[in-house]
Amino acid sequence: MNQNSFVLKGTVCFSEDSNTIFISENAFLVCENGLSSGVFSVLPEEYRGLPIHDVGNRLIIPGLVDLHLHAPQYCYRGTGMDLELLEWLNTITFPQEAKYADLDYAGKAYSIFVDDLKKSATTRASIFATLHVEATELLMDLLEKSGLKTMVGKVNMDRNGSPALQEQSADASAADTMRWLQDIQGRYQNTRPILTPRFTPSCSDELMKQLSLIQKEYHLPVQSHLSENFSEIAWVKELCPQSRFYGDAYDMFGLFGGEGCPTIMAHCVHSSEEEITLMKKRGVYIAHCPQSNTDIASGIAPVRRYLDEGLHIGLGSDIAGGFSLSIFRAMADAIQVSKLRWRLLDDSLKPITLEEAFYMATLGGGSFFGKVGSFEKGYEFDAIVLDDENIRHPQPLTTRERLERLVYLSDERNITEKYVSGNRIL
Amino acid sequence: MNQNSFVLKGTVCFSEDSNTIFISENAFLVCENGLSSGVFSVLPEEYRGLPIHDVGNRLIIPGLVDLHLHAPQYCYRGTGMDLELLEWLNTITFPQEAKYADLDYAGKAYSIFVDDLKKSATTRASIFATLHVEATELLMDLLEKSGLKTMVGKVNMDRNGSPALQEQSADASAADTMRWLQDIQGRYQNTRPILTPRFTPSCSDELMKQLSLIQKEYHLPVQSHLSENFSEIAWVKELCPQSRFYGDAYDMFGLFGGEGCPTIMAHCVHSSEEEITLMKKRGVYIAHCPQSNTDIASGIAPVRRYLDEGLHIGLGSDIAGGFSLSIFRAMADAIQVSKLRWRLLDDSLKPITLEEAFYMATLGGGSFFGKVGSFEKGYEFDAIVLDDENIRHPQPLTTRERLERLVYLSDERNITEKYVSGNRIL
Repeated sequence: MNQNSFVLKGTVCFSEDSNTIFISENAFLVCENGLSSGVFSVLPEEYRGLPIHDVGNRLIIPGLVDLHLHAPQYCYRGTGMDLELLEWLNTITFPQEAKYADLDYAGKAYSIFVDDLKKSATTRASIFATLHVEATELLMDLLEKSGLKTMVGKVNMDRNGSPALQEQSADASAADTMRWLQDIQGRYQNTRPILTPRFTPSCSDELMKQLSLIQKEYHLPVQSHLSENFSEIAWVKELCPQSRFYGDAYDMFGLFGGEGCPTIMAHCVHSSEEEITLMKKRGVYIAHCPQSNTDIASGIAPVRRYLDEGLHIGLGSDIAGGFSLSIFRAMADAIQVSKLRWRLLDDSLKPITLEEAFYMATLGGGSFFGKVGSFEKGYEFDAIVLDDENIRHPQPLTTRERLERLVYLSDERNITEKYVSGNRIL
Repeated sequence: MNQNSFVLKGTVCFSEDSNTIFISENAFLVCENGLSSGVFSVLPEEYRGLPIHDVGNRLIIPGLVDLHLHAPQYCYRGTGMDLELLEWLNTITFPQEAKYADLDYAGKAYSIFVDDLKKSATTRASIFATLHVEATELLMDLLEKSGLKTMVGKVNMDRNGSPALQEQSADASAADTMRWLQDIQGRYQNTRPILTPRFTPSCSDELMKQLSLIQKEYHLPVQSHLSENFSEIAWVKELCPQSRFYGDAYDMFGLFGGEGCPTIMAHCVHSSEEEITLMKKRGVYIAHCPQSNTDIASGIAPVRRYLDEGLHIGLGSDIAGGFSLSIFRAMADAIQVSKLRWRLLDDSLKPITLEEAFYMATLGGGSFFGKVGSFEKGYEFDAIVLDDENIRHPQPLTTRERLERLVYLSDERNITEKYVSGNRIL
């Protein structure tokens, strides 16, 4: 019997779909060889030989998924919070990211980041590093050891950076990308590369062409940014006059989802009709980052519409446009900003519900990683155990109320156990 | 020498005005008989006999002020988060508040609330209880023991409540208010009564008249709600057809600031021009509650305007429209929603700054309590000491950056000491 086979007993919650949270108290959640075999109110005969770990009244939920964050920006989260996107990139982000040329600095900064990510409710994440190959590999080494399952991208940027943070040419950027991919071949179990053109303003057409070839050769997933901010969108139009809309500036180069090119686009706050139609057609994943969109004053994405129209959508912390690494916080933020959008912009798009936020944080984003984000049979066994005893109350609470309180009020102290593909990492 | 005379040495920050945070490292903050004698880079001769407590590199800031919260709602914070104001009051709030007729329940619930408030960064608060006299006194007893300085109101409501939560008549409400005021006379050092008509829809004209007489007889401050939600505003117009605007429905009865009637009005999200003009004239304090205004989908108050026009304004957690008791969180929320307001509603009203949020949380709200919210000479010595070591970083940070990170990222674990009028309570 594999050591990744066991039974957790407790109060189990997971999304059945975007409108339904399955809840079962005193339930048996079975893990076999790192995969869920399902949730049972009476443990079936066939699993009675497995070790049972009873967590009592605690909640067991799928590990949370962070579809978008910048590891090098973690160190300055919660500072410089009064700038818009392009000003923020030039004034704070680019100078800070330039520091990762220094591997000593990168080691210190990334160790803090990985420690904190491990302590969080997040089990899967899609992560931007910097343009530096060595520092990116160092980050991947640390993430690999953490037991978290992540995708990590060496960033590509050959224009509009800062003197200290820009690759010298499209060729140099592509060559570094190849070097990185060759370096890491076969090196990791938990950590995978993802192709990461920073965003259109940072990548020349020539670089995009070369990245497209690399994508096809290595069958890589892709992540980037899309329609976050009005000035950015206008700038893309100038830089890529041949594109019909921002997303088309990726699609022209075959870097916008579709067969063999799974893609995450962060933000999609101001996507046009054509862009939304194409995202849906291409199966592009939207990383909704409500905290960042608020902090950098980008706006509020029409998440109700994306959900109702069946687009792929998950949540992102977008460290350090967002300041909190917590995807619970991202769930609360997503609900909150959807209420303001409904009140201030468009009362035809109803606020999103707890059920929908929970879905985005688990199954919605998780499916980018395969069968992830659910406890249905066959899903990877990513789970966290939550103790809510420190959030005291005098009255009885339903399980749904307990879950709702954890979304709004929990922090890493409430996480008592954490499993990734059946391996306990906390 | 009074035991409330001592010197704290550390990194001191406080608001000089709404645009300026005074910062001094390795500074001496002198407390004499519970009052600040000021901040000095070299300790003056006259204070050298006082005991010095060196907190090293930690930050020392004024205690935070919560101008608006409902103690009985603390137990269900973070649940039922998908309703608008009037629906939320009827479905959740009124049935929950009715439970405080039971003193056993009230004791359990209020003990949790007071414990948590004591552990928070808040040193002063203006608090709604329920309509129940005995439970309100129980809450005041607990708050008194905590060492926090608070104002507490037995709520008045003689109409539009629920069968289980409404006073039988204006006379009965007024009589209970008198009984409460007589009961507590001379009973407390730290805890003061504040007259608390719930809001216009809950109080008949006759009750307002009687409350006005009580206000004058007892020289009480007043707290209530104002212009939070569109349906509420329309309802007030129906209920008080003779009022020119919502605030006028209080002013008609002399319960809207002015000489001898210090008043806090929570929310002011949708105040009309006339209402704003009258608030300014009457010196009414606005309790800005950004989290609640988001959660109940009320909207975003024009705080930039209130600050620029010199109205009195502080922050409120508005438990349990808001779910977090933290006024640090209220500062971050205030900045964040002001960015969304700027982006989505009115780009002539710039987002508020860290300096302004810090001002509202300290001096802005503090002045309702007298000389509170600053370390200038003569202010009451309300202070908290903050340790930010657990928010790790690889790079040097300025003191302002450290303060900004604490606003966005701290919780009660970062508070190592807490003083109210020079008494250490944590």
